[in-house]
Amino acid sequence: MPQTAPFHVLVSRKLTDMELAAAIRLDLEAELDAINLYTAHVEATDNVEAKAILRHVMDEEREHAALFRELIRRMDPAQARHDSEAPRKYQLIVSGAPHGDVEDGGGSSGAAAPAPVGAALTVGSLRPR
Amino acid sequence: MPQTAPFHVLVSRKLTDMELAAAIRLDLEAELDAINLYTAHVEATDNVEAKAILRHVMDEEREHAALFRELIRRMDPAQARHDSEAPRKYQLIVSGAPHGDVEDGGGSSGAAAPAPVGAALTVGSLRPR
Amino acid sequence: MPQTAPFHVLVSRKLTDMELAAAIRLDLEAELDAINLYTAHVEATDNVEAKAILRHVMDEEREHAALFRELIRRMDPAQARHDSEAPRKYQLIVSGAPHGDVEDGGGSSGAAAPAPVGAALTVGSLRPR
Amino acid sequence: MPQTAPFHVLVSRKLTDMELAAAIRLDLEAELDAINLYTAHVEATDNVEAKAILRHVMDEEREHAALFRELIRRMDPAQARHDSEAPRKYQLIVSGAPHGDVEDGGGSSGAAAPAPVGAALTVGSLRPR
Amino acid sequence: MPQTAPFHVLVSRKLTDMELAAAIRLDLEAELDAINLYTAHVEATDNVEAKAILRHVMDEEREHAALFRELIRRMDPAQARHDSEAPRKYQLIVSGAPHGDVEDGGGSSGAAAPAPVGAALTVGSLRPR
Amino acid sequence: MPQTAPFHVLVSRKLTDMELAAAIRLDLEAELDAINLYTAHVEATDNVEAKAILRHVMDEEREHAALFRELIRRMDPAQARHDSEAPRKYQLIVSGAPHGDVEDGGGSSGAAAPAPVGAALTVGSLRPR
Amino acid sequence: MPQTAPFHVLVSRKLTDMELAAAIRLDLEAELDAINLYTAHVEATDNVEAKAILRHVMDEEREHAALFRELIRRMDPAQARHDSEAPRKYQLIVSGAPHGDVEDGGGSSGAAAPAPVGAALTVGSLRPR
Amino acid sequence: MPQTAPFHVLVSRKLTDMELAAAIRLDLEAELDAINLYTAHVEATDNVEAKAILRHVMDEEREHAALFRELIRRMDPAQARHDSEAPRKYQLIVSGAPHGDVEDGGGSSGAAAPAPVGAALTVGSLRPR
Amino acid sequence: MPQTAPFHVLVSRKLTDMELAAAIRLDLEAELDAINLYTAHVEATDNVEAKAILRHVMDEEREHAALFRELIRRMDPAQARHDSEAPRKYQLIVSGAPHGDVEDGGGSSGAAAPAPVGAALTVGSLRPR
Amino acid sequence: MPQTAPFHVLVSRKLTDMELAAAIRLDLEAELDAINLYTAHVEATDNVEAKAILRHVMDEEREHAALFRELIRRMDPAQARHDSEAPRKYQLIVSGAPHGDVEDGGGSSGAAAPAPVGAALTVGSLRPR
Repeated sequence: MPQTAPFHVLVSRKLTDMELAAAIRLDLEAELDAINLYTAHVEATDNVEAKAILRHVMDEEREHAALFRELIRRMDPAQARHDSEAPRKYQLIVSGAPHGDVEDGGGSSGAAAPAPVGAALTVGSLRPR
Repeated sequence: MPQTAPFHVLVSRKLTDMELAAAIRLDLEAELDAINLYTAHVEATDNVEAKAILRHVMDEEREHAALFRELIRRMDPAQARHDSEAPRKYQLIVSGAPHGDVEDGGGSSGAAAPAPVGAALTVGSLRPR
Repeated sequence: MPQTAPFHVLVSRKLTDMELAAAIRLDLEAELDAINLYTAHVEATDNVEAKAILRHVMDEEREHAALFRELIRRMDPAQARHDSEAPRKYQLIVSGAPHGDVEDGGGSSGAAAPAPVGAALTVGSLRPR
Repeated sequence: MPQTAPFHVLVSRKLTDMELAAAIRLDLEAELDAINLYTAHVEATDNVEAKAILRHVMDEEREHAALFRELIRRMDPAQARHDSEAPRKYQLIVSGAPHGDVEDGGGSSGAAAPAPVGAALTVGSLRPR
Repeated sequence: MPQTAPFHVLVSRKLTDMELAAAIRLDLEAELDAINLYTAHVEATDNVEAKAILRHVMDEEREHAALFRELIRRMDPAQARHDSEAPRKYQLIVSGAPHGDVEDGGGSSGAAAPAPVGAALTVGSLRPR
Repeated sequence: MPQTAPFHVLVSRKLTDMELAAAIRLDLEAELDAINLYTAHVEATDNVEAKAILRHVMDEEREHAALFRELIRRMDPAQARHDSEAPRKYQLIVSGAPHGDVEDGGGSSGAAAPAPVGAALTVGSLRPR
Repeated sequence: MPQTAPFHVLVSRKLTDMELAAAIRLDLEAELDAINLYTAHVEATDNVEAKAILRHVMDEEREHAALFRELIRRMDPAQARHDSEAPRKYQLIVSGAPHGDVEDGGGSSGAAAPAPVGAALTVGSLRPR
Repeated sequence: MPQTAPFHVLVSRKLTDMELAAAIRLDLEAELDAINLYTAHVEATDNVEAKAILRHVMDEEREHAALFRELIRRMDPAQARHDSEAPRKYQLIVSGAPHGDVEDGGGSSGAAAPAPVGAALTVGSLRPR
Repeated sequence: MPQTAPFHVLVSRKLTDMELAAAIRLDLEAELDAINLYTAHVEATDNVEAKAILRHVMDEEREHAALFRELIRRMDPAQARHDSEAPRKYQLIVSGAPHGDVEDGGGSSGAAAPAPVGAALTVGSLRPR
Repeated sequence: MPQTAPFHVLVSRKLTDMELAAAIRLDLEAELDAINLYTAHVEATDNVEAKAILRHVMDEEREHAALFRELIRRMDPAQARHDSEAPRKYQLIVSGAPHGDVEDGGGSSGAAAPAPVGAALTVGSLRPR
């Protein structure tokens, strides 16, 4: 472990929209890391109370991951588009479709699907008025 | 002082289902980290060619994040359920609903929504036969 | 340079009681780290939706921290004893009592207080039968 | 080990209340990490003098963890509320109660319990006058 | 893991040409790290769907690595020269040629070869007008 | 606190082809990291002798980066293909071509170009006989 | 990205004497790191209760540092000798004595001083019988 | 290894007394880490020349640790007091005395012992005039 | 791996002589780390082409280490003096000479030897005029 | 969050010659890192006693760096050759000689110079008999 930095949580200024989106991506990473940590601990013990608590907490971390993803979709419309195309592309990839078809297939699917985030909500439109 | 571990990529055995799901969560983290890295570089330069390349690459990282999320949904049905409930819960939370309503609201919404991952695909069912 | 360890979540064997207690302490650290991360992000933005989601998630991380602390109390009776003595010691310390009084005062308080974890529950007693 | 940063302990300004609470959470993390370190060393040796010293020190780290937790409860009333609800929620979770009951059960318990931190002491009220 | 730094993606100013080239080198490092991560995961599982997705993604990371390398060649003409000389030097080295021949051989080869990046495009010439 | 791992360079077994390719990618990362380090130092000093030495060394690190890239091309034919397609794709991207054209354009270009690494040299063919 | 190792506290075997001495040196480092962390937090706040708790805890960390140092002296007689010579050498160094005198002066002082750790207690003699 | 930070040794201003004491504690940590590193290397080889050089160097690192400790005693009188009380407390702890006796016993011992650092030398009194 | 810091190579100002010397020491550390990395990879493979390239590159890293050491000698005359005394001291140490003789022996040797760096070239004299 | 590995100094087996040379290179890095740490602290304070102690210690770290370098020269004859050629190459580089001359010039100089490490001492010859 390197030296413990005493002041890693100083807030110097408000974030820009781009920086806030990056912060939420980092938050999502933290939730994924926590899920990995708890799932490993559940697997490595037979203590029933510890397993129960870990599973309860882990389930809520999954909820948090889902909420942060939803927030990212609204702040980053390009991510929302890729999220909506992913199920179709996934099917093409695992069925062995050539690379070009995956690129096309995902796109047309996305065009046909009901736009899940509505009219491209940008971060700007979320700002307090 | 610089101390690079020469052998951080040794494969010692096949992963269990739990470990594979953890690996894919880590892969998703890596994509999010890359998006954050490239978005910061785009923001910090006026060089038009560098911006164009970074944006092209960053767009594909978003696609990768979406694909890894889709894979996680199929390996981890509990995550899939939370993902499908998240849009409704998100609305409740930002509209200031009390905590209890959020827990309930998300759940009933999830029950009503078309199940996006079908009949709970577990990792086991993805295995080669 | 970036050097991600691909296999940091391999489970090699079940944990001993001591190791499990250490794992839960690490889990509590992870929750505290997450609270610090989210509180910093709340503070650094005026985006009302992001603030609402972050606060909702952060509140549940506080619940998780409380649950992990409760689990630690049950696995580590010495910690439970210190937890029950802490309010009295805290008062003595902030009122400027000499060091010896703090050590004594906390102890007698603990003796008088209703034992919050009952008859020293050890990890052993939590084990599945 | 990366390069040793010579100046990781420079104090640039006083902390805000939010930043101070984050600092104390970090301090609690440091105590938990120390307990884990010493408990591992106790377990890994038969040297009786080393074991005796490590156990003495480790016991005081547990006291420190309890004191920092008490300080956090007073700086962060939301954490205090969750701490007081945790024993009841813990029981519900390990007894297999459904998720909704846990959320409700903890809350009603918290409402009935004697408020352990009194009239929501905020950090502001701790400030020197 | 050290504490999570909440604000690692703050953009304070535009990069100089030198700093931008360094940023793109870091981006290339990130792609190489991702390829290593995914190739390890492919190797460590028999799950056919996970393998298919990982290979699809990994192939695009290789494309990204190639694009960042191309961008570096254009920003750093000295790197472009070494890239064009490398195939010849590689042959000399593996065939056991003495060190001096490698230095000379690579150079003359580079002189004869069609200049792959044209008239030394410097970063300056890529700037928006 | 400083905690240097004394034995980070222990060789436990020979690498597989996949692991060796990952090792060389890591080596390429190390060269890129060194170039970034030295270029920063050149920029931050007016000491003429230090600048001259740093530039001499940095030029050879660029040569090393080129050699490791050449080695990777020979061990990883998929990377070689992407490298040969990159100049054409780069042009399409910076000229604003739509995403689909980039995917196609790069491919057809690659098909027409003289194959720079010959008949797909795999790692296997580099092995000693 | 965040990547917490879930199992950093696994005990695989008992430590040798050399390894135990190294462990206690690491424990002393941990105490020094904690003192630095708390002293920085004391300095950065005017909150009187937080300052009081931090100072109380910090004082006990100093006691721990002293105890670990005492344990090291008994496990490592060479360290004990240097500790007893240090005050004299310190005086010589700050008074500007030449390097040779410091080496000699410390030694003769150490010979004259009452041996503070008695007849070279080695770790062996501390072992349980 | 993360990226190498090119400028980790920039001096921005003179340290306060508190910060200087923290710096010397970090220096002591660095010496302890070096002793651990070299002792491990001595143990892991039979090369007689390497062992001789490592032991020579390691002995001087112990001297450095002793000198930094002496400097800390003079800058931090509270540490000096704990250092002088430690031998008595150590004896009480390893002989199984109850916790209260250790706290008292150490203190009375410290009162009787010849004050080893004289009239509480603070850092201030070491300052150049 | 922690989060990737996007801007670790920002140049804020020119280095002082002291800081430049520290930078070159860091550069030497980076070369030593690279040699360790490549030597481990050579040892862990039988691939003849990879071995040949790694050995070629590693040999030039040794040259770089030698050049950086030469630069340090010229910037840091105290280091140059120790370098010139080291061969004699080395002989004394490995032949078992007492510590005092090593200190003296190295010194007298240094006095008699032809001064290897000429008239103590300080960094100042290397500056551009 | 703080996560100290308790057992980073376990010795599992004796090192090979290659691994021992790598260990000593790491030790040299540790000395360079310490010099950088102490030189920064000297620069950042006016406390005369702290400066005197830091300078005394730092001078011995330079001696250690010289001794480890001497040990590396004897274990790694290729490094010894480059060290002896470095002064001549350094002169050629700073005088602006073309790259080819540097490669040649260093070599011929090395041939003419008195071989400083005698008849290529390999590690093998240092082994105990």
